[in-house]
Amino acid sequence: MDLLELVQTSIERHSLLQKGERLVAAVSGGPDSLCLLDCLHRLGYQPIVAHFDHAIREGSAGEAQQVKQLAEQLGLTVELGRVDVPAERGGRGSLEEVGRLHRYRFLVGVAQRQGVRAVATGHTADDQVETVLMHLLRGAGPAGLRGMLPASDLGDWVGVPGGGVRLIRPLLAVRRSEVEAHCATRRLTPLSDPSNLDLSHFRNRLRRELLPILEGYSPGVRLSLWRTAQIMAAEQELIEQLTDAAWHRVIREAGPGCLAFDREALLQEPVALQRAMLRRAVQRLRPGLRDVGFEAVESALRLAAEPSDRRTTLVGGLDWLNLREEVVLRWPDALIHFPWLPQLEGPEPRPLPVPGAIELAQGWGLQLERIELASDQLARLMTGEMRREAAIDAAQVRGALSLRSPHPGDRIYPLGMDGSVKLADLFLQRNIPWPARERWPVVVDDHGVVWAAGLHLSRLHRLTAQSAEAISMRLVVQHERHAPSGMTAQ
Amino acid sequence: MDLLELVQTSIERHSLLQKGERLVAAVSGGPDSLCLLDCLHRLGYQPIVAHFDHAIREGSAGEAQQVKQLAEQLGLTVELGRVDVPAERGGRGSLEEVGRLHRYRFLVGVAQRQGVRAVATGHTADDQVETVLMHLLRGAGPAGLRGMLPASDLGDWVGVPGGGVRLIRPLLAVRRSEVEAHCATRRLTPLSDPSNLDLSHFRNRLRRELLPILEGYSPGVRLSLWRTAQIMAAEQELIEQLTDAAWHRVIREAGPGCLAFDREALLQEPVALQRAMLRRAVQRLRPGLRDVGFEAVESALRLAAEPSDRRTTLVGGLDWLNLREEVVLRWPDALIHFPWLPQLEGPEPRPLPVPGAIELAQGWGLQLERIELASDQLARLMTGEMRREAAIDAAQVRGALSLRSPHPGDRIYPLGMDGSVKLADLFLQRNIPWPARERWPVVVDDHGVVWAAGLHLSRLHRLTAQSAEAISMRLVVQHERHAPSGMTAQ
Repeated sequence: MDLLELVQTSIERHSLLQKGERLVAAVSGGPDSLCLLDCLHRLGYQPIVAHFDHAIREGSAGEAQQVKQLAEQLGLTVELGRVDVPAERGGRGSLEEVGRLHRYRFLVGVAQRQGVRAVATGHTADDQVETVLMHLLRGAGPAGLRGMLPASDLGDWVGVPGGGVRLIRPLLAVRRSEVEAHCATRRLTPLSDPSNLDLSHFRNRLRRELLPILEGYSPGVRLSLWRTAQIMAAEQELIEQLTDAAWHRVIREAGPGCLAFDREALLQEPVALQRAMLRRAVQRLRPGLRDVGFEAVESALRLAAEPSDRRTTLVGGLDWLNLREEVVLRWPDALIHFPWLPQLEGPEPRPLPVPGAIELAQGWGLQLERIELASDQLARLMTGEMRREAAIDAAQVRGALSLRSPHPGDRIYPLGMDGSVKLADLFLQRNIPWPARERWPVVVDDHGVVWAAGLHLSRLHRLTAQSAEAISMRLVVQHERHAPSGMTAQ
Repeated sequence: MDLLELVQTSIERHSLLQKGERLVAAVSGGPDSLCLLDCLHRLGYQPIVAHFDHAIREGSAGEAQQVKQLAEQLGLTVELGRVDVPAERGGRGSLEEVGRLHRYRFLVGVAQRQGVRAVATGHTADDQVETVLMHLLRGAGPAGLRGMLPASDLGDWVGVPGGGVRLIRPLLAVRRSEVEAHCATRRLTPLSDPSNLDLSHFRNRLRRELLPILEGYSPGVRLSLWRTAQIMAAEQELIEQLTDAAWHRVIREAGPGCLAFDREALLQEPVALQRAMLRRAVQRLRPGLRDVGFEAVESALRLAAEPSDRRTTLVGGLDWLNLREEVVLRWPDALIHFPWLPQLEGPEPRPLPVPGAIELAQGWGLQLERIELASDQLARLMTGEMRREAAIDAAQVRGALSLRSPHPGDRIYPLGMDGSVKLADLFLQRNIPWPARERWPVVVDDHGVVWAAGLHLSRLHRLTAQSAEAISMRLVVQHERHAPSGMTAQ
């Protein structure tokens, strides 16, 4: 197949461009980008030439001028960009990474100024093979094995919204040798292969040393690695679609910097999707992180499968907490929200007005009433298990009621039991996730705990046949959310 | 983690064995299999020692005796097997492949004689790494990248039903260095590493030359390849489940040696599943085939996406036919059955009794009746489009009616059209798949075509107001099957 046809077929098969669409072509001046520019131009697309000078090598300014002349000879619009990458780097990151970031930002800028939606680069099938091999050697996970995609979102590369600008790679099915033959036939004279000099040392070693060695073991190794990318791209796309669907079954919103997995739902998904969801969750909370290590994912999933409260630190310093009903991934300092549990807004005690109402976190509230007791009301208030509503004898309250968080050593004399128990033990018995315990609303008077809201009532304050006046306390919630089985009945 | 614990964890995590289960341990006498035997024995399983002598090297008979003594010292049952592999091979296949086949057959036999359900081998994490690398270099596709599984069906290896005997690999997470350390600590003395000498030359080169080279590029490359296998195993399992589900949506049974894909349904599936279904279909029709090449699959799917009748030869000499409504994969000599279309059983003409009935293929039949015409019956028989039922004027039949396949040059004077047309053109117009055309039932008399059953009726035989007697012809079908839209209304 003729090279132009091959490029046009790639463009159609992956829907890279509309017929005659305007786009930015990233042109370093090396053979790949010259070939790209020539093909796009001859196929009737309208490339705007963008050249970025990394100021890494001597003579780069002269190369920029050569690219400019070439574009003008073809009658094409051209934009030049320049950043002193070594100076900008300031010792952080590799020249390659910092250079790529600035180059891609420049390309997004050109696309936005020119009002086009696509930036094309000259990556070839051989670049793809090197990328897959590099990822294999370094263990970049399943997403790494698919190599570069024919089309991706340029915004993902520059760490800022790319405004919908796509990065497209029309030469991804073209061999480097075909590019060179095309340049020779079309008398395109590459500048002194600047792209090669931009290469990282590692990629260069793969290209010049390792791939020839591998070909000694299996002459078809390049094709084999290229196919691996093709196969993995389709499989990863499918797994991502399945992950989208599973995500909604498994994830509960739990506040900023915090994602809660429904533990049982997570464990019911196929292992491949469990892994994919966990990787995605880490990337949501730590968008800068390139790879999520395989061992980290495996040990996190093992911990999730254990039936005990445990925590560990994952990649990127993220906390991973097994809370029995949920497993939570969070920034180390992030407050976990439990919209399905009553929680205080903050730790400081607040007086409770009777009658009155007080707001709790996440749409919950506590309402208090005074009730003059007639015998039939008494019967209603005394019956039933402890629930979101409880009533006490107003005469048994010492001092004023207030609302606070549990204190270490808090005890209650629970209705329906003998003696006293620690609040901490009650939380444990009732399967309250430990991060929710420290913000549990507790109603107290001057002598101690009156009501661990929704959980236990003090028998010292209980209503009796002698009670003349009751105080009713009721937890209310604005929007009932998805809640674990333990709490809905409370 | 202690090696015994690691092995026990592997056995539990992958449900390889029940507690204390009896099994066959394949013991070559090398360090891996001695370590395996020692671990299984000490963990309380009951290994039966099976040793296979390939008769490839001098002294192999002596090694067999050493393994026997060792097993007897441990108080274990032992079975020895021997095949002269070089003689058996007779120049076909590699020594490694022929040797493995005979070894695995022996192991299945031992398991069946001893009444156990599992055969354990000593493959280690390093073997896994070598396997993945070998598959990568040679391009064995996505299933190859998962390497060896912790458990598989031994029958798949020996090409005969394994009677449910599983091949298990309890050391697959254990490094070779750990095996060697274990042998040293436990004073297990391997025979002169017979497993290594069995190794293919290629695997040996990967182990001794290439992996050390790769470690020079990335010290973690072994771990990275091992992880790749873990990741791919889970993803392939998921994709196989999805393929099972998609298979029933897409495949129509079409007779022995023949699988028909519903073309539209196939093209609606994600690319990864299209590929997986096609690979599976090839393996159903050519079970011996180890790999289905990536390019073959891609070109087949491209042909399926084209809106034209075309055919090509796929791997294993299989035909791949695009029939517009279906795409058919078949042995080159296989008859395609179209249970949803009327088809003759064979090509020879058969006389048609009137009244009477005649059987067609796949539960279809043709029924004929004589009807004395009253005017209201005439009206009924003359109206309506051509369908599964048609009626002709008995007086217009020349000679006797018979049923046969279409002949080259057959023409009909179709009711509702002027002049005559070729049957071949009518089939084309009506979108009849070409392999179904040659077995289409055609009713003829001595002068020519009377009825292309279900499709077109001759106007020379039509009923008129003068007709005194009609012959009614009716296609019937026992079980209505899934049918493409074109035919159901006929």
